[in-house]
Amino acid sequence: MNEGMIPADLPLRNDLISEEPYGAPQIDVPVCLNVNENPYPPSHAVVRSIEKRIREIAPTLNRYPDREHMELRQAFVDYLAKESQASLTTDQVWGANGSNEIMLQIFQAFGGPGRAALGCDPTYSMYPEYARDTFTQWHTAPRNADFTLDVDRTIEAIRAIEPSIVMLTSPNNPTGTALPMTDLKRILDFCQNARVAGAADGVHPIVVVDEAYIEFRDPGTPSAATLVNTYANLAVSRTMSKAFAFAGARVGYVAASAGIINCLRIVRMPYHLSAVTQATALAGFDHTDDQLAQVGHLRELREQTAQWLREQTYKGEPLEVAPSQSNFLMFGGHFDDRGMIFDEMLRRGVLIRVVGPDGWLRVCMGTDDEMARFREALTASMRAVEEQTNQANQQ
Amino acid sequence: MNEGMIPADLPLRNDLISEEPYGAPQIDVPVCLNVNENPYPPSHAVVRSIEKRIREIAPTLNRYPDREHMELRQAFVDYLAKESQASLTTDQVWGANGSNEIMLQIFQAFGGPGRAALGCDPTYSMYPEYARDTFTQWHTAPRNADFTLDVDRTIEAIRAIEPSIVMLTSPNNPTGTALPMTDLKRILDFCQNARVAGAADGVHPIVVVDEAYIEFRDPGTPSAATLVNTYANLAVSRTMSKAFAFAGARVGYVAASAGIINCLRIVRMPYHLSAVTQATALAGFDHTDDQLAQVGHLRELREQTAQWLREQTYKGEPLEVAPSQSNFLMFGGHFDDRGMIFDEMLRRGVLIRVVGPDGWLRVCMGTDDEMARFREALTASMRAVEEQTNQANQQ
Repeated sequence: MNEGMIPADLPLRNDLISEEPYGAPQIDVPVCLNVNENPYPPSHAVVRSIEKRIREIAPTLNRYPDREHMELRQAFVDYLAKESQASLTTDQVWGANGSNEIMLQIFQAFGGPGRAALGCDPTYSMYPEYARDTFTQWHTAPRNADFTLDVDRTIEAIRAIEPSIVMLTSPNNPTGTALPMTDLKRILDFCQNARVAGAADGVHPIVVVDEAYIEFRDPGTPSAATLVNTYANLAVSRTMSKAFAFAGARVGYVAASAGIINCLRIVRMPYHLSAVTQATALAGFDHTDDQLAQVGHLRELREQTAQWLREQTYKGEPLEVAPSQSNFLMFGGHFDDRGMIFDEMLRRGVLIRVVGPDGWLRVCMGTDDEMARFREALTASMRAVEEQTNQANQQ
Repeated sequence: MNEGMIPADLPLRNDLISEEPYGAPQIDVPVCLNVNENPYPPSHAVVRSIEKRIREIAPTLNRYPDREHMELRQAFVDYLAKESQASLTTDQVWGANGSNEIMLQIFQAFGGPGRAALGCDPTYSMYPEYARDTFTQWHTAPRNADFTLDVDRTIEAIRAIEPSIVMLTSPNNPTGTALPMTDLKRILDFCQNARVAGAADGVHPIVVVDEAYIEFRDPGTPSAATLVNTYANLAVSRTMSKAFAFAGARVGYVAASAGIINCLRIVRMPYHLSAVTQATALAGFDHTDDQLAQVGHLRELREQTAQWLREQTYKGEPLEVAPSQSNFLMFGGHFDDRGMIFDEMLRRGVLIRVVGPDGWLRVCMGTDDEMARFREALTASMRAVEEQTNQANQQ
């Protein structure tokens, strides 16, 4: 985009000159299945709670908000106890404007020039941006062919690279892959004694587990938040944007040792969380059962959609589907020109996402109606692309 | 604070290890005159607008907000036209969570390792933090003894340091000093041809004018926002936190060339402004006259308070007061132990701020009642400290 849009005499950082703003296209289409939102709006009870809490704080907006957002931190603690059976205290949790800002604060505190961060590819495409924004080197270790974590290669990479931050993701985005606790513990244990390049002896990497989609996991699967009391080098990032149906409220949070939280407090902007955001988040937590009501249904829909996708074919081969514990599915595997499928889908009013390894596409779970339209559009799109390919081959 | 609060095995950036979280103490006292808030709450009409707009967007919170916040950007444009007679378009304005985040984005885009930023001391104490958080070197040029900008020395410093960012502040914090347009234009003109260390030839510094307190200036004084169409290297930062009585909403914005805005779009977090923040800010702009209703009174109060302060003495010498075009006053000048005055004031239920050059304190304008309590407490506090000093001298 930058050609002509950024005059050459502006002192933009040299390494940003060819960069573009991050984000999925904002296109107005009937069926949006591209940014992993929850398709169900907040309940009436939640909306009423938002109104009530906003009405309470609106007359005080001339004052700065509570910089330490203590009431909200208590709500994080209560929710993590209820949802994940994690026993935490308010000094072990911390909120920000989306888990984006949580991650940025983590990279600001623990990254920087001379420091490195490690992720496991394919993974969330924002991680390299947090690294870039904080001058942290970004490295990746490859996952297994089925997108599960290759623990041996990850540990080998930690040994070789000596990162200060190890980024894990469970369920992983865009693949939906869960991270088993035994694998996570092996990496945590290793990191407790691993070196950090550019840091003093006795300094060890922190392990960040991004659990943005954790509520969609199979029931009974533990959250990494239950390990926070055991591992002082663990930070578990969560968000209200996905299962909680609160993407518009921009509330992320992290569970970690009090020491890690104290590091984030050094780099956070003062008063980073507005009184309005704090009130809205509290309203969401007033009705956690309401907010999460559709999670079970979206989980079933994911399984049905995965089953349906596996029964479809493209150019004579059945579609692959990555096993997912999230609200989205990565599928295809052999779309030789995935951009063409995406465009055909868009023409039919269904927006999905070109993301992940070549040959794959990602779709998130919408309402039942939206998924019916997705299935229709995908079938028609694959047939259309096959036909175009046949015609091109015959010429 | 870090002793014991941050375990030594965490990989906190080496240069942050002795740092503390930024911010004034959050103390619960009857009279808070320490963070330059507007003491008057939003009007009933504003509160009703907030409720109405939040009610409208609450049922859509499962969706991400408009990443480009176009409706709010139009409101910034309309307000700048009305308040400052600036003719701008939506591609020349940009919002964020407080002008803190605006500044951070500016430093993220234009600063970084090998880059330098220049401010004019004494000035806002957050600037070095933005620099630190982005690995930008922070330099200062000294102001004149009366706290006005020393334009020659500033230009000399730009020539010597070759910064990518020149930070000016009008009115300045904590001194309240205005920056005359002729001085600003001299610096802007110089910067249009100045070099930037570490950048290609033909790259020139940007000049940021922080106008957080601009609405409190003398009527008729132009805003730097009127120069945005003339100078492509100018960014003017504003906030709703001060005159607008919206500190709790955390809304800052910047007026600049479209090229500068495009640079900020590269480093911003995706969806950094929540739907709730956008709705609340729009509600504020629904009633700009209401929101700014008390500005004239606070300006008068500042002049009366300045006059009263100049009539007071400490240890036999009259208090100095820096001429202010803001909602606060820096006063004293010869408080030989300003911490003692601050403590005595606090004991009397009045919270002011220890900030600025040694010997000075800062107070912001409260309600008429609060200012009466301030005057009472200051008189009593100065007498108490004088007495303690006399007793100590006699021993």
